[in-house]
Amino acid sequence: MKRIIQIINGPNLNLLGTREPEVYGSQTFESWLEDIRLRYPDLELRYAQSNHEGDLVDLLQHCGMQQLPVILNAGAYTHTSVALADAIAAARTQVVEVHISNIYARENFRHTSYISQQALAVISGLGLYGYEAAIHFLQNR
Amino acid sequence: MKRIIQIINGPNLNLLGTREPEVYGSQTFESWLEDIRLRYPDLELRYAQSNHEGDLVDLLQHCGMQQLPVILNAGAYTHTSVALADAIAAARTQVVEVHISNIYARENFRHTSYISQQALAVISGLGLYGYEAAIHFLQNR
Amino acid sequence: MKRIIQIINGPNLNLLGTREPEVYGSQTFESWLEDIRLRYPDLELRYAQSNHEGDLVDLLQHCGMQQLPVILNAGAYTHTSVALADAIAAARTQVVEVHISNIYARENFRHTSYISQQALAVISGLGLYGYEAAIHFLQNR
Amino acid sequence: MKRIIQIINGPNLNLLGTREPEVYGSQTFESWLEDIRLRYPDLELRYAQSNHEGDLVDLLQHCGMQQLPVILNAGAYTHTSVALADAIAAARTQVVEVHISNIYARENFRHTSYISQQALAVISGLGLYGYEAAIHFLQNR
Amino acid sequence: MKRIIQIINGPNLNLLGTREPEVYGSQTFESWLEDIRLRYPDLELRYAQSNHEGDLVDLLQHCGMQQLPVILNAGAYTHTSVALADAIAAARTQVVEVHISNIYARENFRHTSYISQQALAVISGLGLYGYEAAIHFLQNR
Amino acid sequence: MKRIIQIINGPNLNLLGTREPEVYGSQTFESWLEDIRLRYPDLELRYAQSNHEGDLVDLLQHCGMQQLPVILNAGAYTHTSVALADAIAAARTQVVEVHISNIYARENFRHTSYISQQALAVISGLGLYGYEAAIHFLQNR
Amino acid sequence: MKRIIQIINGPNLNLLGTREPEVYGSQTFESWLEDIRLRYPDLELRYAQSNHEGDLVDLLQHCGMQQLPVILNAGAYTHTSVALADAIAAARTQVVEVHISNIYARENFRHTSYISQQALAVISGLGLYGYEAAIHFLQNR
Amino acid sequence: MKRIIQIINGPNLNLLGTREPEVYGSQTFESWLEDIRLRYPDLELRYAQSNHEGDLVDLLQHCGMQQLPVILNAGAYTHTSVALADAIAAARTQVVEVHISNIYARENFRHTSYISQQALAVISGLGLYGYEAAIHFLQNR
Amino acid sequence: MKRIIQIINGPNLNLLGTREPEVYGSQTFESWLEDIRLRYPDLELRYAQSNHEGDLVDLLQHCGMQQLPVILNAGAYTHTSVALADAIAAARTQVVEVHISNIYARENFRHTSYISQQALAVISGLGLYGYEAAIHFLQNR
Amino acid sequence: MKRIIQIINGPNLNLLGTREPEVYGSQTFESWLEDIRLRYPDLELRYAQSNHEGDLVDLLQHCGMQQLPVILNAGAYTHTSVALADAIAAARTQVVEVHISNIYARENFRHTSYISQQALAVISGLGLYGYEAAIHFLQNR
Amino acid sequence: MKRIIQIINGPNLNLLGTREPEVYGSQTFESWLEDIRLRYPDLELRYAQSNHEGDLVDLLQHCGMQQLPVILNAGAYTHTSVALADAIAAARTQVVEVHISNIYARENFRHTSYISQQALAVISGLGLYGYEAAIHFLQNR
Amino acid sequence: MKRIIQIINGPNLNLLGTREPEVYGSQTFESWLEDIRLRYPDLELRYAQSNHEGDLVDLLQHCGMQQLPVILNAGAYTHTSVALADAIAAARTQVVEVHISNIYARENFRHTSYISQQALAVISGLGLYGYEAAIHFLQNR
Repeated sequence: MKRIIQIINGPNLNLLGTREPEVYGSQTFESWLEDIRLRYPDLELRYAQSNHEGDLVDLLQHCGMQQLPVILNAGAYTHTSVALADAIAAARTQVVEVHISNIYARENFRHTSYISQQALAVISGLGLYGYEAAIHFLQNR
Repeated sequence: MKRIIQIINGPNLNLLGTREPEVYGSQTFESWLEDIRLRYPDLELRYAQSNHEGDLVDLLQHCGMQQLPVILNAGAYTHTSVALADAIAAARTQVVEVHISNIYARENFRHTSYISQQALAVISGLGLYGYEAAIHFLQNR
Repeated sequence: MKRIIQIINGPNLNLLGTREPEVYGSQTFESWLEDIRLRYPDLELRYAQSNHEGDLVDLLQHCGMQQLPVILNAGAYTHTSVALADAIAAARTQVVEVHISNIYARENFRHTSYISQQALAVISGLGLYGYEAAIHFLQNR
Repeated sequence: MKRIIQIINGPNLNLLGTREPEVYGSQTFESWLEDIRLRYPDLELRYAQSNHEGDLVDLLQHCGMQQLPVILNAGAYTHTSVALADAIAAARTQVVEVHISNIYARENFRHTSYISQQALAVISGLGLYGYEAAIHFLQNR
Repeated sequence: MKRIIQIINGPNLNLLGTREPEVYGSQTFESWLEDIRLRYPDLELRYAQSNHEGDLVDLLQHCGMQQLPVILNAGAYTHTSVALADAIAAARTQVVEVHISNIYARENFRHTSYISQQALAVISGLGLYGYEAAIHFLQNR
Repeated sequence: MKRIIQIINGPNLNLLGTREPEVYGSQTFESWLEDIRLRYPDLELRYAQSNHEGDLVDLLQHCGMQQLPVILNAGAYTHTSVALADAIAAARTQVVEVHISNIYARENFRHTSYISQQALAVISGLGLYGYEAAIHFLQNR
Repeated sequence: MKRIIQIINGPNLNLLGTREPEVYGSQTFESWLEDIRLRYPDLELRYAQSNHEGDLVDLLQHCGMQQLPVILNAGAYTHTSVALADAIAAARTQVVEVHISNIYARENFRHTSYISQQALAVISGLGLYGYEAAIHFLQNR
Repeated sequence: MKRIIQIINGPNLNLLGTREPEVYGSQTFESWLEDIRLRYPDLELRYAQSNHEGDLVDLLQHCGMQQLPVILNAGAYTHTSVALADAIAAARTQVVEVHISNIYARENFRHTSYISQQALAVISGLGLYGYEAAIHFLQNR
Repeated sequence: MKRIIQIINGPNLNLLGTREPEVYGSQTFESWLEDIRLRYPDLELRYAQSNHEGDLVDLLQHCGMQQLPVILNAGAYTHTSVALADAIAAARTQVVEVHISNIYARENFRHTSYISQQALAVISGLGLYGYEAAIHFLQNR
Repeated sequence: MKRIIQIINGPNLNLLGTREPEVYGSQTFESWLEDIRLRYPDLELRYAQSNHEGDLVDLLQHCGMQQLPVILNAGAYTHTSVALADAIAAARTQVVEVHISNIYARENFRHTSYISQQALAVISGLGLYGYEAAIHFLQNR
Repeated sequence: MKRIIQIINGPNLNLLGTREPEVYGSQTFESWLEDIRLRYPDLELRYAQSNHEGDLVDLLQHCGMQQLPVILNAGAYTHTSVALADAIAAARTQVVEVHISNIYARENFRHTSYISQQALAVISGLGLYGYEAAIHFLQNR
Repeated sequence: MKRIIQIINGPNLNLLGTREPEVYGSQTFESWLEDIRLRYPDLELRYAQSNHEGDLVDLLQHCGMQQLPVILNAGAYTHTSVALADAIAAARTQVVEVHISNIYARENFRHTSYISQQALAVISGLGLYGYEAAIHFLQNR
């Protein structure tokens, strides 16, 4: 049976590739995912995106119950959601936080994160490669 | 006709009893509710839980229109949701805020609450008995 | 073809007219909208309301893709939602922020807004006329 | 032998019933206590009030040594006394903090409490019933 | 007799049209005023500008005594002048605060305003049209 | 019958005249009181001093019950005592706050006062004459 | 030759007596001044009022050069003017700060004062009698 | 005649040795004092403890008048008492502040001290030996 | 034609030389100016001083329109005036900020400056020589 | 010619493997480096460690001049060194910041970083694999 | 074999005795050390001083490896160095922090210390005797 | 004998002229120094640069002992080094702080300076001419 890793993207990350390509590149997350699935045939890489905080909490709870390791890019909820942080704390599965851009070089309110205090690790600014590094990391634990 | 009291639980409270039993006990909220309904046969105790802030706003608005007294454990939204606080202010029904653990003995960000400023009263740290004390209180008003 | 303007109302604004009439007047938003549509026959005024932050993000993304100008009263999410602010920044359509009451004369936490930093303009305290002023403004750009 | 519970009231709470009846009701604490003692004949409800911070520390130390559970309404000292908080920490008996009004809906300086960080639980805004809920809670532990 | 509305502009607003046209447009306030007077023949639109905080206080006091509604763009004094805010509070006439640019999208110190707490409403970022919206609003009250 | 005014001095004010004469003068409060009693024969000027916060609360409660106007120099408790502020709020008698030195020209922590928010008026820096001005003021109300 | 005392009133204090009589009484400052001059025939009580910060600085400099003791009610400039505070520091004459209402029981921004740090003494909340107490105080030095 | 040194312990320090021995050791302060008196026969080591802030102020005033050097462990009042700090400033005798545990490695509110700003020196974390070091230091001055 | 440089001094700087000579020296600004004009015969050094913020704004606007380089010592307005900072930003001429004393070694509120963020350079603490250094600097650009 | 990547470790990172193995593992950085060099034979991985802030600045300047990409774990200097941040800004080479543990889940002072604002990306909490992910990332740019 | 104690002095402490003798006395640290070595012949008192933060980190690491107890006066680095605090945490030897003057009675920035949170104890204001008290304390553990 | 002035440059200032020429110009500090030495033949202008905070402390101590006046551009250490500030305070020679760019118009953390509080004067934003102005100033004292 393949090892499962769940990737969860939060608000506005569905726009990736079609909007602000000069910042985020012109690749959609889905096409990147296709590539990466080919390169990691031993893994089952599940993917979900939602603009709803509550959906993300539901997803994290589900992963917690199934013991699935999670790669979470909570987007803007990173900086405002105690509910997501609590869901990670309750889940007790491994959660790696990923951001495509370097949030620490952006506005001040993006430097604080409830989620980072509960996550295992944080990767910020490596672009889409950040997701791959997280996959690597989780694969070898 | 029975008097109705609406209990509303917020994010991650659906995990009660199955997760972190050393903190929250091993009883699910549903089994506790069964007991309490037997002990308060003259009351209709309605119950709803959601991880979605918007659902909680919808519910509070409904209770406001029906003039139903509410026992609200908004979980993590307690500390971040102005929308819920506004819904309570608009509702003009009686809302008692309940927390299972003592939030004032936890992290600093759990000490501030938009909701407490609109609620009638706050009960924090009495475990599941806190809901019962709130029922008692609302029953006799 | 008529020019389209999308009006988006956030949490608790569905209660307009039926609640706290001494503050917000006794007119519902829908009846006001009817009047205003009669007076602006050359415009297609679309309207949506939701108590869900995620719904508002979805809507803003849709307007961004369709290049529809937006009048946004995000209610309580004005003060807490980075996700909405990011959606406006990504949308690159024209967004005018409207508040019925003067939020700067209310509680301190209503003086800070993530959304105002991304919106084109802010109108606060003109009552329902604020929406009309925003229509005027967007119509002539 | 009856189980003992010690109720301790802090500064200005001796004025209860004779002052500001529109806020706190017209019942004195003593007359309420008489009623409650009749309703809980199996308990020995001891009561003390002082305007002196040092007296309250002395009392808490005494209860700690005797292992007596305590219901503490420290009044204004709630927000300023590290000495009382240290006394609770040292006492290692069960202390439930009670406030008659909802302190979280009052001035900002009443939202911070050294005592709540050491108490088992906090009840705020249930009126005199808050003491009864605390009795119930302590009785069943 | 024509209805009178007093427009008051504060420091540096005399430079409008001749300076930083890429930000504020190339129209002087005076030429805009000429246009608007033609379009609102039933109104007497009085206009005054000063770089002196004391002059603005004097003007507001005068309008208060005459019960003249005021459109006030206090420029930089918006963020520093308690004296102007007090003058508005004492005046008890209707004062609408207008800013040409969106001050909430500029430096942080421009987000706080003593004046907004006393004004009836705030319009920010609509360009010169903001004055016209304020005229509309005051005309119909 | 003579009109009664109660003067209450807080911690360290018993040292007046014998210590730091270069700051507070060499007159003891008692000798000053003798003089002032001679000059105001129609008033009964009662005086009490204590280093104990609880004593001052007791005294204020007593004055409140007797409807005695109070001149209060709470010394260091001015800046730390919510209990005294609550006692004034409950007392509903007239309380004038007096300080011998100008506390606003001293350390920052002396610029904040819970008591001033409840007192009728504050006199600071007039030396012992401050008490006399307060007597004058209370005498004529 | 009569001893001279200069009274200086700042912004909006010219409205005294004609505006907000429920707060400030219905007596104008000028009529009060007439009374007080009759009662203090040995003093020459000079009076000036201005809404201009610069005028108040000019006046204080003049008093400093003439060694005239000053009673200063700087109104709103109390809380914002470093220029006035510097003028007092440079003047080296005696300046007593007076406020008609108790500014410490009003909004937070009225609790900080640059001027109080340079003034000899502060009187706040004694109404117009505060000026008289200041006259008494200065007369006897 | 023996040189006198006064040791003053504040709130909850009477519990030393009987409570939390794993933190503070199992020796009572009294038994330690006996030992130390034997080892310093040339000194008269006076000792007092009180849970009352006012008592501690009284004691410090007494020592000030008698010119007795003081070793002060004000316990929790260290962090909240301006009255004690003022008493030290007025006393003009030598006061050494001692804490048994290292208060700088504990909660943040224990890092600020009104008393340290007036004391000659601060010793924190040396256990009971801290008192002895203070004795040594005062003995040789 | 001589090159023109405008020197502008703000509030209280007219007192230079006649007041606080131990701090600022005994030379008046005018006598210093005479010397400096003799030493720089190729420059037309214009000079103006005012205690009025509005005057300083007027002057800066004038210099902006004439493209005159400015040496500005705004005195106390340095720390409080957004209006002056805006005038500099609008002026687009070269403005060098000068302070006679080292403002960074004085009170904290003198360490923040709206003006420095718009000025080309800041010279603080060089005494009157600071003006000369600014002249040198502007002369060679 | 091999591509060069410079790894720079800051204060206390020389202790890796020999100290606190339960936190950081028992592998020394040197032995990890040996492994990694074998696995990346096409890269020249240079390594330096210093406890001196100035050494790290020197090194970064050198890498900047040589255009060498850098992996920087500045340890404690991450949170206090503006000098290092300036060196990165001046260097204009690619710098990836790495931390072995998740600094965002540790003390608050570790959440702020001058360096992150200048670095290309931040990896925190992936253990020694974080360095490898950075190598991967830099190799493919 | 003699027991070893390492004394480490930080920046500017090499100037002791030759500079500011009115503050720190006229004895050099070296001459004091000579005396103290004579008086503690059973101890090997090693001493090092450096103005370099990195040197102090190196030294602390060395002591940690040798298990040598340390007396550390980190001077100005006390208030800014996380690197030193981390070195103490890693060292796991006993470190007593000493300051010659009472840092809590000096500027505010000297009241915060990263080092005190890791040190065993803090002695501040006892002059050079503070080192001796630390020796005593470490000798008897 | 020539008068000596020591110029000390801090971290990253060795890069001057070779890096970021659009900000700092293309002249190296050394070539500027050559020019300036020719123009001031009566002065011996010594120069040192280091990226090490400790080196700068050493240098300042040396200058203090030799009574050499110092021109100090501490670069990034300006904002973080208490050690340098203490070295200046101890040195008691004349230190003028110079910055090439206007640090008050840059990031907020560059607006605070420990060093400015100890320096005689601050020059910021005059480019390399700032050093010459400092030379002038020191030469004539």
